Amino acid sequence: MTRKFVARWVIRSFGASGRLARLGAVVAIALVAGRADAIAQTPTVPLAGVDAALLEDMVVGSRILAELGVLDGFGHVSARHPTNPNHFLMSRSLAPALVTADDIMEFDSDGNPVDARGRTVFLERFIHSEIYRARPDVMSVVHTHSQGVIPFSVSKVPLRAMFHNPSFLAAGVPVWDIRKEFGETSMLVENAALGKSLAATLANKPVVLMRGHGDVAIGPTVKMAVFRAYYTDVNAKLQSQAIALGGEPNYLTPGEGEKADKTNFAVIDRIWNLWRMQIMPTLAK
Amino acid sequence: MTRKFVARWVIRSFGASGRLARLGAVVAIALVAGRADAIAQTPTVPLAGVDAALLEDMVVGSRILAELGVLDGFGHVSARHPTNPNHFLMSRSLAPALVTADDIMEFDSDGNPVDARGRTVFLERFIHSEIYRARPDVMSVVHTHSQGVIPFSVSKVPLRAMFHNPSFLAAGVPVWDIRKEFGETSMLVENAALGKSLAATLANKPVVLMRGHGDVAIGPTVKMAVFRAYYTDVNAKLQSQAIALGGEPNYLTPGEGEKADKTNFAVIDRIWNLWRMQIMPTLAK
Amino acid sequence: MTRKFVARWVIRSFGASGRLARLGAVVAIALVAGRADAIAQTPTVPLAGVDAALLEDMVVGSRILAELGVLDGFGHVSARHPTNPNHFLMSRSLAPALVTADDIMEFDSDGNPVDARGRTVFLERFIHSEIYRARPDVMSVVHTHSQGVIPFSVSKVPLRAMFHNPSFLAAGVPVWDIRKEFGETSMLVENAALGKSLAATLANKPVVLMRGHGDVAIGPTVKMAVFRAYYTDVNAKLQSQAIALGGEPNYLTPGEGEKADKTNFAVIDRIWNLWRMQIMPTLAK
Amino acid sequence: MTRKFVARWVIRSFGASGRLARLGAVVAIALVAGRADAIAQTPTVPLAGVDAALLEDMVVGSRILAELGVLDGFGHVSARHPTNPNHFLMSRSLAPALVTADDIMEFDSDGNPVDARGRTVFLERFIHSEIYRARPDVMSVVHTHSQGVIPFSVSKVPLRAMFHNPSFLAAGVPVWDIRKEFGETSMLVENAALGKSLAATLANKPVVLMRGHGDVAIGPTVKMAVFRAYYTDVNAKLQSQAIALGGEPNYLTPGEGEKADKTNFAVIDRIWNLWRMQIMPTLAK
Repeated sequence: MTRKFVARWVIRSFGASGRLARLGAVVAIALVAGRADAIAQTPTVPLAGVDAALLEDMVVGSRILAELGVLDGFGHVSARHPTNPNHFLMSRSLAPALVTADDIMEFDSDGNPVDARGRTVFLERFIHSEIYRARPDVMSVVHTHSQGVIPFSVSKVPLRAMFHNPSFLAAGVPVWDIRKEFGETSMLVENAALGKSLAATLANKPVVLMRGHGDVAIGPTVKMAVFRAYYTDVNAKLQSQAIALGGEPNYLTPGEGEKADKTNFAVIDRIWNLWRMQIMPTLAK
Repeated sequence: MTRKFVARWVIRSFGASGRLARLGAVVAIALVAGRADAIAQTPTVPLAGVDAALLEDMVVGSRILAELGVLDGFGHVSARHPTNPNHFLMSRSLAPALVTADDIMEFDSDGNPVDARGRTVFLERFIHSEIYRARPDVMSVVHTHSQGVIPFSVSKVPLRAMFHNPSFLAAGVPVWDIRKEFGETSMLVENAALGKSLAATLANKPVVLMRGHGDVAIGPTVKMAVFRAYYTDVNAKLQSQAIALGGEPNYLTPGEGEKADKTNFAVIDRIWNLWRMQIMPTLAK
Repeated sequence: MTRKFVARWVIRSFGASGRLARLGAVVAIALVAGRADAIAQTPTVPLAGVDAALLEDMVVGSRILAELGVLDGFGHVSARHPTNPNHFLMSRSLAPALVTADDIMEFDSDGNPVDARGRTVFLERFIHSEIYRARPDVMSVVHTHSQGVIPFSVSKVPLRAMFHNPSFLAAGVPVWDIRKEFGETSMLVENAALGKSLAATLANKPVVLMRGHGDVAIGPTVKMAVFRAYYTDVNAKLQSQAIALGGEPNYLTPGEGEKADKTNFAVIDRIWNLWRMQIMPTLAK
Repeated sequence: MTRKFVARWVIRSFGASGRLARLGAVVAIALVAGRADAIAQTPTVPLAGVDAALLEDMVVGSRILAELGVLDGFGHVSARHPTNPNHFLMSRSLAPALVTADDIMEFDSDGNPVDARGRTVFLERFIHSEIYRARPDVMSVVHTHSQGVIPFSVSKVPLRAMFHNPSFLAAGVPVWDIRKEFGETSMLVENAALGKSLAATLANKPVVLMRGHGDVAIGPTVKMAVFRAYYTDVNAKLQSQAIALGGEPNYLTPGEGEKADKTNFAVIDRIWNLWRMQIMPTLAK
């Protein structure tokens, strides 16, 4: 009995390499889902008007971007507050791979924490506050130092859509150079004026690159913002390879981009379910 | 006793990193093979005329391509129905890393599910239906968004055979540009007309690239189609590197390609056995 | 009870792939921290005047650089002796992935071991002894054969700061070519004269490349030297990609570099805590 | 007690990702070494005159090259027979990641198995038989399809030594093009004439590339041949990157190569011990 039980579980650790781990997670969830869900969804001190599923999406999104190599120890995922649209939700200052529901805090429209309770906050929360202010359609913001996008952030070559999953890039990807308006800085968006300038460069686009820093991807849901952060990184790496082959790559047209983006919305749960299955077991206690 | 048992198993989790996991799998199979085989091979509702080994190959093929990074949350592996050659078999709409025998459905020659029982199906099943219709010799079709091939799909540089394992590429690799015949689309093969056009571009070749999308590899068995999908991805990455060195690479000639392909058929079980040993433990319940 | 216990632990092995392992580590630490701390911090024969936290930083630094692929079987992390500043601390001759507190030895200002007790020492300890002699501000030295930097070590293209995390590179990165002063050698810094020459080329900079060999990163703490070794490797890979896109990349200016470096000091614990959590469980006995 | 035992072991599975697994292996060996050693060293039917340590080196070498990504399902490691120098030892036809001492067979100087007992053999055993015949100094031969070297095998750009670990490449790396002497073939070294031609191109060098196929690295011990196969792959990848930066890289001179190679011999156990610790636990039964 014990033997069988242990065997069933440990066997899965054989598959704990690379992508195989994600598969083992499917079964693990059956056992631990109750507890893992609690960690993903229920803060010790509840956030008024915030449902558990939103917190889970934020936790899964933060952790999967670390797992996929889009984030390292830095970067963050936020969401607009669902019942108080002037506010937003974001983790306390913490590596994204470690975020739980309990780490998520509420911020007002100026990026001030509503109830800090001694927790430290991200220097760059103004990326989020100013984009939520400027773009009422945006429900989630992801900031990364993705290794794919950094070379494009310092290059004159624009990022363009290589295939249908990053189709949203076909709308055009602006680059924000902090030095143009602000001279020599620490490179970080550490006040509202910097955030406003970044939001102005983003304008109505889904992604903006930050020179010598990284990028910001936005979306109408946490899932879509995370999906876009991931595929922006993938696209950048593939575009570099296509350029190295020589000649002008045959990019998606804006019309193709728009149509393909609709399909991405329709099928996002196929990849999100895989990602969720990979992440939930890491939350079990 | 318990101690010894647990130790024997858990020790293997030390080897659960990268390729080491695959080795541990060898031993794990001895214990779990019965149950894992069942999951790989036996659907809850049997598929008439379909033997268990074919389902296992489809499950192993789907999962190993995810493990090898050829597939992410998208892409699919199908097989011609072994006793009703107008029909074919393919998973319900699901990330390939998660496919079990129970997820495999039967489709008719127009891509309609024979007995859906509420399961959702892939938008792009017409890739498969129209290739099976046009190519009676094809017994398996694999569709990927492989990161190796996407740069070649948008480039004028043709994919060519770099070494003997991807020798099948020496026959020439056509590129299908959906925009040529159909204008601006969602990029997806979501109806029969698109599938027919793709099959016409594939013609009598083993692989076709899809501009801004990915590729399709076919084979006389599931094993060969999976092998080709894998080595097409590897070849593309190596060809990019050879081109970056400067000068024209010394590719395999068509004659070399034909001869080497025969050897690949002869030795495929050496790598397939390794892949199977990596995947089976992920199926144990 | 046992069942629950085993389940709780083994479940985490599902997440033992790639970055997921690091998350599992958070919980593991709760259980094993006492013992793992002992291994990271307490040598069998105490090092007089050396506190446990410094040894832990050296162990974590050695192991995380191997985990991050910055080191393979070679390379080393040292620290200036905290109470005898003419001396320094470094592991016996051992792959960095295997270092424990017990392996750390004390060396005098000429690189001679103070109390070898039969342990073998690194040939290249003169890298460390001569930099500590020449640079009183340096408290830690890391030597790597990082795959990112080797191409730059044999190129005329200077390494320059691509983004804010490797901002310290904006000060300029000298390249030391052992052949210039010493002719044909084994390439290794195996005596004091070679170490002095390397230290002279490093001058007042944070990083020096070694032609056909690797690099040295220094810092005011072990954490900062490890951080710099890691981001030097990352920067080199990203700079290669930016150059391949064509045109001159828009690098950080020296002024930006200085300001951003101050922020790096302020936030280093965010990534160090993640790294520590990944490494501590590997030390439990 | 059981709890403590299980905890001690399972905790290590937290570290089972990437390079961390290798660290956990250190402890695992303490427990399983007896049994793992047996699998690495003791064939069911003893090989006369072959000591256990040699078989272990062959098993560790085969498996670590798969773990390091130098080999996939194909490639092989052989050793000259220690007491019958006209014969050599090599695995039966099997993926290198799966080799145990029991799979190692003896072959005569023409590549015929001495006592096949129904086991299948590698098509390309003539690579080994003809190099042992032509080069009495060679004690071990490794054949790979390493992804680093394939681009160089089809390029006019010669592989040259980038840093001190692959210093042996400074002697020059010939490329064998099977087509020159034999016209269009299957690309494989499937008879003695092909093996002789390859050995003639290798001449007195440590490595030869095979056009559109891979490479062969030889050494005075199994450890050195494996070390060279690994660093040839690493060097090729780094040389590609250096070339992409533009300008002529500053390669090691032949004189530097010779001197550095002597140091490699002296320090090889530092990396071999790490590799052995990673591999032994995968052999425990």
